[in-house]
Amino acid sequence: MGQIDERTGLEQLDPTECLLLLGRHNVGRLAVLDGGRPAVFPVSYRRDGDTIVFRSDEGTKLDAIGDDDAVAFEIDQIDPRSRTGWSVAVTGRATEVTDAEELEGLRKLHLEPWAPGAKARYVRIVPESIGGRRIVRLPADAGVR
Amino acid sequence: MGQIDERTGLEQLDPTECLLLLGRHNVGRLAVLDGGRPAVFPVSYRRDGDTIVFRSDEGTKLDAIGDDDAVAFEIDQIDPRSRTGWSVAVTGRATEVTDAEELEGLRKLHLEPWAPGAKARYVRIVPESIGGRRIVRLPADAGVR
Repeated sequence: MGQIDERTGLEQLDPTECLLLLGRHNVGRLAVLDGGRPAVFPVSYRRDGDTIVFRSDEGTKLDAIGDDDAVAFEIDQIDPRSRTGWSVAVTGRATEVTDAEELEGLRKLHLEPWAPGAKARYVRIVPESIGGRRIVRLPADAGVR
Repeated sequence: MGQIDERTGLEQLDPTECLLLLGRHNVGRLAVLDGGRPAVFPVSYRRDGDTIVFRSDEGTKLDAIGDDDAVAFEIDQIDPRSRTGWSVAVTGRATEVTDAEELEGLRKLHLEPWAPGAKARYVRIVPESIGGRRIVRLPADAGVR
């Protein structure tokens, strides 16, 4: 078990556990800067080593990354009824993959976009920070909820 | 049914349907600018009229909104296996609610944060744009997938 944050009462997940969770899931949300303002999109992704890869067509995501490569990426699994869940957040730099050999490797990831469209272009996020949180139900809570 | 976007093959949801979906769900993702870079967090929220309200403690979210009130907010329900799903995205301005009467009204929303902590402060997002997309399975697709 990771460290408990006293301010929030949440367990902080260490980077190894965050990478494990990123490897087990395949839908996340990408936040980019679009004309200096945040925009957020759901994306299908794969973890590739300690990077995140997704596919895209031309459009807002690729335009935004071309203007400013700083991105955030998040996955979570939250049940508001039971107040349980976890989230993993990454900040990093996103670049379109254009190298033929690298693209060939990425095609082997079988990365299927959730939305239709060719989505022939691949983008890789190289994390600069990675962190996660999990709600911990402490035994002392059990009687009072 | 809304308009089909020919580039993406997705149905565009109209603002009325987006607001309906926002009213039916209560966990979304908030993207803010943190030191000029995007950051994204899961939040419990309630739709209040055509605005979005969430609770927060002091920390990154409130600090970021204090520096730059431009935010994005997103909800989705996506099944990557069946390639079905929808998403709704809002961009707007976020402000902390400090008016006593307004706060009293918001407390009646029974907005419970997913994470522990007092989260005594309320933030309202007033949308400037709202849009949504849904994957449409056209009958012609049925035979080829």
